[in-house]
Parts: sequence; structure tokens; C-alpha cells
Amino acid sequence: MKLQFLGTGAGIPAKSRNVTAIALKLLEEKGSIWLFDCGEATQHQILYTNIKPRRIDKIFITHLHGDHIYGLPGFLSSRSFQGGETTLTVYGPKGIHEYIRVSLAVSQTYLKYDLNIVEIEEGTIFEDDDFIVEAKILEHGVTSYGYRIIEKDRPGKLNTDKLLQYGIKPGPIYKRIKDGENLTLDDGTIINSQEFLGTAIKGRIITILGDTRTCSATEVLAKEAKVLVHEATFSKEESSIATEYYHSTTVQAADTAKKAKVDCLLLTHISARYDQSLTEQLLQEARAIFPNTYIAEDLAEFEI
Amino acid sequence: MKLQFLGTGAGIPAKSRNVTAIALKLLEEKGSIWLFDCGEATQHQILYTNIKPRRIDKIFITHLHGDHIYGLPGFLSSRSFQGGETTLTVYGPKGIHEYIRVSLAVSQTYLKYDLNIVEIEEGTIFEDDDFIVEAKILEHGVTSYGYRIIEKDRPGKLNTDKLLQYGIKPGPIYKRIKDGENLTLDDGTIINSQEFLGTAIKGRIITILGDTRTCSATEVLAKEAKVLVHEATFSKEESSIATEYYHSTTVQAADTAKKAKVDCLLLTHISARYDQSLTEQLLQEARAIFPNTYIAEDLAEFEI
Repeated sequence: MKLQFLGTGAGIPAKSRNVTAIALKLLEEKGSIWLFDCGEATQHQILYTNIKPRRIDKIFITHLHGDHIYGLPGFLSSRSFQGGETTLTVYGPKGIHEYIRVSLAVSQTYLKYDLNIVEIEEGTIFEDDDFIVEAKILEHGVTSYGYRIIEKDRPGKLNTDKLLQYGIKPGPIYKRIKDGENLTLDDGTIINSQEFLGTAIKGRIITILGDTRTCSATEVLAKEAKVLVHEATFSKEESSIATEYYHSTTVQAADTAKKAKVDCLLLTHISARYDQSLTEQLLQEARAIFPNTYIAEDLAEFEI
Repeated sequence: MKLQFLGTGAGIPAKSRNVTAIALKLLEEKGSIWLFDCGEATQHQILYTNIKPRRIDKIFITHLHGDHIYGLPGFLSSRSFQGGETTLTVYGPKGIHEYIRVSLAVSQTYLKYDLNIVEIEEGTIFEDDDFIVEAKILEHGVTSYGYRIIEKDRPGKLNTDKLLQYGIKPGPIYKRIKDGENLTLDDGTIINSQEFLGTAIKGRIITILGDTRTCSATEVLAKEAKVLVHEATFSKEESSIATEYYHSTTVQAADTAKKAKVDCLLLTHISARYDQSLTEQLLQEARAIFPNTYIAEDLAEFEI
């Protein structure tokens, strides 16, 4: 599992930071990639990565501000043009459906794949065998969601030596045991699958927040996450501006990371007022409170 | 007067060519810049030029395909964010109004300037003291316009030596004579302004076409233009594909330039299938028919 930042700036694009988009690469886990937000020129940023647009099968939009959605119509069109044929689902706040529908209709864009658009509310918005995605509303000028991506615990390693001792030879039965199924063999032996499995592998939690003021929802969403992606539009000195514009400071993000007991904090959505030298200062502000903090740069990738 | 190409590719962005946008810089003539089409990431390309977004006060959209319009909402928003306060007018085919309205409304974007959106039909779509802009429908899968920008003839140089011989001293009267006004002086002398002016300076004609198959409208729009900007999505060998997809080849564009007796042909909207070495071949194909041809590259600027 990897997180790659495609845009880490706030509001408008700059040479050094594009507007927001984050790719959660689940290639080993699911053979797919999930995108969080899709600011203008996200498809341009993808040209500089190893991401294949057809692999992106879910897009989660945090909120409808232009710097988080204006790249959607272009990405959706190009994914079709570049041979994407599998279903793609876009999750987002109310209004996302009209925006996509009108953009594609006016430009007479016909996709070669099925596009599902889900206007979400708080709660569990997706679940399959491997993952649960929960959404919760943050505090921003418009409805802005934070997403908690919960990987389900996976079965432990199969003890093949022990299976062979019981005379159980490799075959489809191994998968059934690995999947937790209890079996009765032809000779009447009862196989309790748990006796043949190592300790379950704890699933990881990734929390990706939309733009927000510091608020209680962020801590709930981030609780014990392996990685928390939190906006830090401003430095600690600008907390009143941050509050006025419904954004967060470095220190507010670090406080949340500490209270929620996350493993790692990744800061993004950095205002263009902070150049490279000031970015180092932002980092130190956050690390003073939560040491395992990094500031994301465009195209930076983090192994989770 | 200068033309700067902000995107010269076809359909989808590539590393070397962004999707379509062209800036007609009228800084000396009008203190403003006109944009033709606004593909995704046009505002990103502008970061690498000396163009100030607030100087752009007219945008002419040729047609509504995504690679020509998906940069509009972001550009309009950022122009406001970056201090643009003067009125901006967008001209384009029917549908452009709904696209802009919905994009800005869904993202709750409030512009600090007046935005006029004019859904055009064929004919004269704009005229002031300096310029006339005419539009004509081309042959594309959707309604696609070509624009003929006609600079009005300007008065010739004022013969100040002759004015002084007549005892007319510098002052506001010089401007009135320059503007072609005939005057009667206090002593009854009649001043025929034309006698004090050199030969009128012929206005330039710039023709910028949207995507099109080769058709009769292109020649009408381009007639005796100083510069013709024509799409050349394909090489001469692909004329059947060009016709099928409502596009043009290098040779078709050059034929039009020749028949219309233009001074200079600029080719753009080059398919990503042609890399740098093949681009040279495209150029030679066109030059074999119309020698004064250039292939536009992203950010290239042409003095007119």
C-alpha cells in the first residue's frame, strides 16, 4: 500500500505545488488505485508517475471547491480515451453528480466505461471483503468530508508443516482453511482452521481529510490510524486566519495526530505563501508536537 | 501584436503538448489579451509566461469538446483570486453558459469581476473602434467556430511639419486631425485632415480556427489573413482518418493557406502520435505546398 501525492497546494496551482489530488495505491491488495480529490491537471501530474488511469476505479471527493474537483471531467474523459473499460465509482458530496453530468454532456463526452456517481452522507460509504470506508463531515465553508479507510484484518500465515503432519496435501483445501473454513475430512477428522493459522494480520487504517478547521471529527476519523493526511494551509502563527477561512495550521494538525495516536502524520494543502525555506519551518512547528510528521511534496510517495 | 500558444496538442494532454489554448496579445493595441480556447491546465501554462490573467478580458471558445474548455472554470476562479476585477467576456457555442454556470455554482465560486457569457451565432460577434471579430461554423463533429479577427485600418502618420507651416501648433487639435476630423480654424481656414495624414496603416487580419475537416468556410475566414492558425491533427497520409474524425491534415491546412493567400500559416492541435522527429516531417509536408508554415510548440510566441 502506497500513498502518492499528485498535488499538495492550496486554492490555486503554483509551479511547485499543484492543487489537490492523492492516489492510494492498493495494487498488491486489490490491483487497483483509489484517488482522493481531483484538482485541475491531476491527469497531467499522472503523466509523471507510474499510475495507469484505467487502474483507478474509485475516486473519493472530499468537497466541491474548484481546487479539488476541476480535474475530474478531464480525468474521466482521458481514462476512456486511454482504454479504461472497467467501472469507475465517484463518491462525493451532493452536487458532484450535476457537475460531472453537465461537464460531460456539454462537451459531448461519451465514456466507454460505466460511471457510478454516489452522493454520500456520513457513515459507511463502502465495504467489501478487504476494506471499509467511512465518511464524516468536517468543518469547512462547504460540506467537506474526511475519509477513514479501514483495511480488514487478514488471516495469519498458513502452517503448511502442520497440515502435512495431518496428511493434508496442498490443493484447493489450503485456500478454504486460510479463509477460515472448518472442515471434516473423509476419515472424519475435524479441521479447526484457526489451529493451522498464525496470528491474524492487523489491517491498516488510513485517514484522509478534506479541508477543515480543527474540530472533533478529525480526531474520531484519525483514531489510531497508520497514516493521517491532514491539511496544513497555514503556519502556527496564522491560527486566526486559519479559523476565519475554515483551514488548519501545522500545530492544529499535529495536535490531532497526537490525540488520535496515529503512527504518522502527512501534511498537505500548503499555502503558496510558504516557499521551500518556510516549508522547513512549517515542518519543525508540527514536529515539535508530533515528531513523525512529513510535509508532502508533489509526486512524493509514502509506503504504508 | 503577438500570438502565444499555451497548448498545441490534440484530445488529451501529453508531456510535450498541452491541450488547446492560444493567447492573442494586444497589449500595444488595447492593453489586453484575448484567449482562444481554454483546455485543462491553461492556467498552469500561463505560470510559465509573462501573461497576467487579469489582462485577459475576452475568451473565444471555438467548440465545446473537453480539450478546449475544461480549463475554463479554473482560469475564471484564479483570475478572481489573483485580483482580476475588470469585466471578462466569454464567447462560445450554445452550451458554454450552462457549463460555466454549473461549474462555478457547484464549487461555490464567487467571482470578484463581472462575467459576461455570449452564446454566439455566425456573423460579427464583436466590434469596437479597433477590431471586428467574425465567426463562421466549420465542419466538426460538434458546432465548431473559426474566428476572423480584423484590425481596423489606422490613420497614417500626422505630418507635423505641414501643420506647423499652417501655423497649427501642437495641442488637442492634433489628435482631432489624426482621428480624421475636418476643422475650420478661427481665421476661417478649412483643414481637411486627410491632407495632413500619411497613408492609412492597413489593419491586420488574424484567423484562428477551431477543430475542422477541410471545408469551404476555412478559406473564407482566412482570406488574405496575415496569420492563419489551422489545426493539423494528422499527417498527409492519414487523410481518410482525418475526414472520418472531422480533423485536417498538414496538406489540407497548407492548401487552405495557399488558396486564401495568407502571409503565414501556423499549425497546431498536433496528435500525440507524432513525436519530435515526426513533427519535422509534418512541417515539410505543409511547406511543400505553403512555404511560410510553422508548427507551433507549447509556449512559442509569434510576432504578427
